[in-house]
Amino acid sequence: MKGFAMLGIGKAGWIEKEDPVAGPFDAICRPLALSPCTSDIHTVFEGALGERTDMILGHEAVGEVVEIGSEVKDFKPGDRVVVPAITPDWRSLEAQAGFAQHSGGMLAGWKYSNFKDGSMAELFHVNDADMNLALLPEGMSLESAVMLTDMVTTGFHGAENANIQFGDTVVVVGIGPVGLMAVAGAKLRGAGRIFAVGSRPLCVEAAKFYGATDIINYRDGDIVEQISELMGGKGVDAVIIAGGNPEVVAQAVKMTKPGGHISNVNYHGQGETLPIPRVEWGSGMAHKNIQGGLTPGGRLRMEKLVSLVEHNRLDPSKLVTHVFNGLQYAEKALLLMKDKPKDLIKPVVLVE
Amino acid sequence: MKGFAMLGIGKAGWIEKEDPVAGPFDAICRPLALSPCTSDIHTVFEGALGERTDMILGHEAVGEVVEIGSEVKDFKPGDRVVVPAITPDWRSLEAQAGFAQHSGGMLAGWKYSNFKDGSMAELFHVNDADMNLALLPEGMSLESAVMLTDMVTTGFHGAENANIQFGDTVVVVGIGPVGLMAVAGAKLRGAGRIFAVGSRPLCVEAAKFYGATDIINYRDGDIVEQISELMGGKGVDAVIIAGGNPEVVAQAVKMTKPGGHISNVNYHGQGETLPIPRVEWGSGMAHKNIQGGLTPGGRLRMEKLVSLVEHNRLDPSKLVTHVFNGLQYAEKALLLMKDKPKDLIKPVVLVE
Amino acid sequence: MKGFAMLGIGKAGWIEKEDPVAGPFDAICRPLALSPCTSDIHTVFEGALGERTDMILGHEAVGEVVEIGSEVKDFKPGDRVVVPAITPDWRSLEAQAGFAQHSGGMLAGWKYSNFKDGSMAELFHVNDADMNLALLPEGMSLESAVMLTDMVTTGFHGAENANIQFGDTVVVVGIGPVGLMAVAGAKLRGAGRIFAVGSRPLCVEAAKFYGATDIINYRDGDIVEQISELMGGKGVDAVIIAGGNPEVVAQAVKMTKPGGHISNVNYHGQGETLPIPRVEWGSGMAHKNIQGGLTPGGRLRMEKLVSLVEHNRLDPSKLVTHVFNGLQYAEKALLLMKDKPKDLIKPVVLVE
Amino acid sequence: MKGFAMLGIGKAGWIEKEDPVAGPFDAICRPLALSPCTSDIHTVFEGALGERTDMILGHEAVGEVVEIGSEVKDFKPGDRVVVPAITPDWRSLEAQAGFAQHSGGMLAGWKYSNFKDGSMAELFHVNDADMNLALLPEGMSLESAVMLTDMVTTGFHGAENANIQFGDTVVVVGIGPVGLMAVAGAKLRGAGRIFAVGSRPLCVEAAKFYGATDIINYRDGDIVEQISELMGGKGVDAVIIAGGNPEVVAQAVKMTKPGGHISNVNYHGQGETLPIPRVEWGSGMAHKNIQGGLTPGGRLRMEKLVSLVEHNRLDPSKLVTHVFNGLQYAEKALLLMKDKPKDLIKPVVLVE
Repeated sequence: MKGFAMLGIGKAGWIEKEDPVAGPFDAICRPLALSPCTSDIHTVFEGALGERTDMILGHEAVGEVVEIGSEVKDFKPGDRVVVPAITPDWRSLEAQAGFAQHSGGMLAGWKYSNFKDGSMAELFHVNDADMNLALLPEGMSLESAVMLTDMVTTGFHGAENANIQFGDTVVVVGIGPVGLMAVAGAKLRGAGRIFAVGSRPLCVEAAKFYGATDIINYRDGDIVEQISELMGGKGVDAVIIAGGNPEVVAQAVKMTKPGGHISNVNYHGQGETLPIPRVEWGSGMAHKNIQGGLTPGGRLRMEKLVSLVEHNRLDPSKLVTHVFNGLQYAEKALLLMKDKPKDLIKPVVLVE
Repeated sequence: MKGFAMLGIGKAGWIEKEDPVAGPFDAICRPLALSPCTSDIHTVFEGALGERTDMILGHEAVGEVVEIGSEVKDFKPGDRVVVPAITPDWRSLEAQAGFAQHSGGMLAGWKYSNFKDGSMAELFHVNDADMNLALLPEGMSLESAVMLTDMVTTGFHGAENANIQFGDTVVVVGIGPVGLMAVAGAKLRGAGRIFAVGSRPLCVEAAKFYGATDIINYRDGDIVEQISELMGGKGVDAVIIAGGNPEVVAQAVKMTKPGGHISNVNYHGQGETLPIPRVEWGSGMAHKNIQGGLTPGGRLRMEKLVSLVEHNRLDPSKLVTHVFNGLQYAEKALLLMKDKPKDLIKPVVLVE
Repeated sequence: MKGFAMLGIGKAGWIEKEDPVAGPFDAICRPLALSPCTSDIHTVFEGALGERTDMILGHEAVGEVVEIGSEVKDFKPGDRVVVPAITPDWRSLEAQAGFAQHSGGMLAGWKYSNFKDGSMAELFHVNDADMNLALLPEGMSLESAVMLTDMVTTGFHGAENANIQFGDTVVVVGIGPVGLMAVAGAKLRGAGRIFAVGSRPLCVEAAKFYGATDIINYRDGDIVEQISELMGGKGVDAVIIAGGNPEVVAQAVKMTKPGGHISNVNYHGQGETLPIPRVEWGSGMAHKNIQGGLTPGGRLRMEKLVSLVEHNRLDPSKLVTHVFNGLQYAEKALLLMKDKPKDLIKPVVLVE
Repeated sequence: MKGFAMLGIGKAGWIEKEDPVAGPFDAICRPLALSPCTSDIHTVFEGALGERTDMILGHEAVGEVVEIGSEVKDFKPGDRVVVPAITPDWRSLEAQAGFAQHSGGMLAGWKYSNFKDGSMAELFHVNDADMNLALLPEGMSLESAVMLTDMVTTGFHGAENANIQFGDTVVVVGIGPVGLMAVAGAKLRGAGRIFAVGSRPLCVEAAKFYGATDIINYRDGDIVEQISELMGGKGVDAVIIAGGNPEVVAQAVKMTKPGGHISNVNYHGQGETLPIPRVEWGSGMAHKNIQGGLTPGGRLRMEKLVSLVEHNRLDPSKLVTHVFNGLQYAEKALLLMKDKPKDLIKPVVLVE
């Protein structure tokens, strides 16, 4: 089969590979919709995960089941399915402890385009299909569905870890697609005022659509000071970090009130350490909780998010600014994520 | 001053009383907007709280501060304020334990028209003004604001105790004003599918407006069976009880999946016991959590809810079907709650 | 092979059965230590689970692995293992939701001597060995280890669901072996005063050993009144129900303060409903949380409990009052649980 | 009256001051037992709080009430009381939000010897006596009681924020008196294995007494490596930081498993930032939660801790290595905390 792969750090291209084989609990799918992710860019062009050779890219996909293993019970060839970016080993002590995304090691529930071939291919493999796939409902757009696999679940996990209560004031730093879904997630957890930190006009518009009440542009000055001024000097209840360099952690701590929450879903790819500012963290005693986590994955998670779209709680299709038809456009779509033109939030590749 | 009072069980009327006096931490307000509550009806006409003589009714009010005690710091005469139905003693061990609504005894944070004169009068007293009042923002309608004091906070507390997670399926039993706000609250916590159980056409329409996806009418058959059929035999994640007789607790347990939540905000006024069905509760082992609680009150709670209205997360004014002008209409508004005409959800009395 | 089985309601006896067969993820063990459980008595002599024919009894065992399936990685023949009473299907949506004990249906994580042959046999089957077995450490007594499989984990789950905080006052109703472990668990969560409700002298002594500070004997009068008097009229923080008839739920609610917790681990085998007393439950608004749950099972749970014994946090061997040598004593041990002589807490059968 | 005060940074001495005056809700106490704290040393000799002039030191005291304000209801002159180090303003929005220790600003529930005269004087002032004092029970030693006011409550808060579950493995870094109480608190929350990091022989002995199972001496090599080796490369469930320089935060993150907790109760007095190691924090996605918090204070907290000592769950008197008789020894006791002789854990000054 053909797939678009990382050939080595800095290089990507089309390769031929053996078709994947389904173990007894697994499925083989062909993609119906794909979306490249900024982390694919980090992986290929920054070598964020280290060297990889001929590893097919892509971890955001909606697919059609073409083959199932002997033990798969709930899916059959022809089923249209949402495939989460995170496909844990549910038979693991980490899953028993409630953190399946770290099954097999820290972050190791993330397999596609990490240590396993991704979905930018004619076919791709799904481990433990009954536990990791969700049915695509009739009538749900492929564009919406493919956004659930990573952008929505990751942004929403940012909101979950921020412990938002009715009427809380929340800051979301970064309004790329994950940040936008953090805004939407914060709104859906009951936030009142939501500050969104970003500058690209298209993203600003989308942030407002998804629930931001105030836009903070870092070009207008220090974001901590801007927000402090708008808050009359008080801290916010929670900050969700969905972008930025290491210093964003310090900024988030500074913005947050004692007893508040800092929730990171940003992939920090640089720096030896992320800094907690000592004084603003109350010399260690301010109860400003700092959490950072990879999104949960798996079937139940996807079914819950599917339910939100089905019942009109969320329209993730607004994230999709570019649609291509044909697997061959995977490359072009990926490079869009690298070049980030002004009119881009997320591209989607539909496959016939 | 003049006030509309419970004269004794079964009797209500206008009385004259001494003006209330503010202690050092207290405030005296005049009402700007009032709303009678079904529990006023229980209190007067069913004697639910026992005998009361010449106790002024009403616990849902927006007011104007006319006098403050010597120790009040954050409010001054002329301020327009949201007055929660629940005005706890914050200096109490119950508040230290996180349950201020039970300060001074079970449910004793509920003072107005319970063991203290209510707000259906020319003047009313607010204990601990700095801790129990919230400023009414410029531009917020009195109708919306007065709904926050009990209907919104109570319905939302039902949603809070239901432990709703993204995409959960929730049943709300009862779609009077509290149930409607439970629907709105469930949506704002991230529920996907929301079953609303009720039958009055006006309330059904409002339930859909606030987020219900399915309407279940008990006249169409057993509600447990109806929902079970729509769920394909699976239990729901949570049930919020906002109406019904004791049997509703059994129904809620039957509808709920193992690991789910039953959250009661209904004032149960009859019956010796509320029944947990043994078998469906897994003979005591099904992890179907049963919680029931009086809404939190006080300043911070009101400020958080005010923020939701300010930032367009919620429009509680849709609850208000009847508006009167003049304190003298308190009586008529109260009797509306007793008679429940078809076109009623909640009446509001504006006081010039 | 030979096993001691329920032949039908009211009848138990030795039978011959085919040896169990291990699927690819399973193991076959021979018992090293067994303990009968009161629920075996309910099952056989009260028909609590309904009719069963030739089902081998027993769900508390320490065993030696004699055979493993092809996919088992962490265990091998000869390993000595703790086998939890609850052996869930970890590949299930219920496990993904955090309630593996209800995988496959309410309570269905409980398989042994429920809908699968138990461990009172020459051999027994373990589903998903890697996920459900824990190694028995060198030097840990079989008597202690076999208590972990049900008595400790169930009693401790009662303590977990009671949400005990440092210094809380806790009531444990029932001081059979599960209740005794609820006492021990409450102490290990930081309870201060612990009331234990029971009367058998041997159990009273054990309750004190495990941490009870006050013994309440129901023969001395109503237990609610006794505790209320000792509490000066105040409610307790939590009640753990580990015995009693349906009325115990009402008693527990009456004892508990607003904001407190009632945690049931008792198998309620009789009555249509369990009664919540309306008035003492604050007419639905007292925040007296009612939870009841089957213990978690599986490997991680067992490993955690093993760690407690290894590090001398708990000595469960004090529960064991009778020790027999030889599988043939399974019958006698079981009947002891039926007859409950004065000197019995739990019997253990060691198998060479 | 006479008191032992910080005269300025680096200088302490006896001064004369006006007797404190009780407001209507306050009490005046004379000390029965005092204990100096390491933070007094930071305050005076390192200027950690900035300049202070003639501020009386001390925030750990048991006292006798000598005078009460007109509104105090639950205490009277002659009562013997436990006085927490943290005496919040319970009438505050921070208290309503559940973080009374930050009432009036971050950490501002800590008043004594911070921005208010402390207890090392003939008399000292207690704000809101009904909300901040707890009765000293008959028969409880002054030495034990005075340890509750800061050492026990702070160490135990470290354990609370570490989210310890039955059988968890916990590291406590630092085994001064707070660290020792973190060990005791971890044991009382149900920890299995407890690594205590420290080296002073007296503290090592005490750590074992309070529940440590393994002692890690930083002089034997990198503590992260030592623990990793003993854990077979796996992370621990939780780390409580009760000592160390900023680098200890990085060490704690490195030791902790994905999904684990880092809980800081150390007063970090130096460094611009506390470092989170990026890679070991999963590039922001490892779910290694970082919390740090000032202990709760007030009456209910003290009553709960008193209950633990009363019911023999904890013997804090083992912390007390030096006892002096007479207020004049406050100076000597304080200087002991500065010099830290080998035989010191905590000194106590009894006042007749």
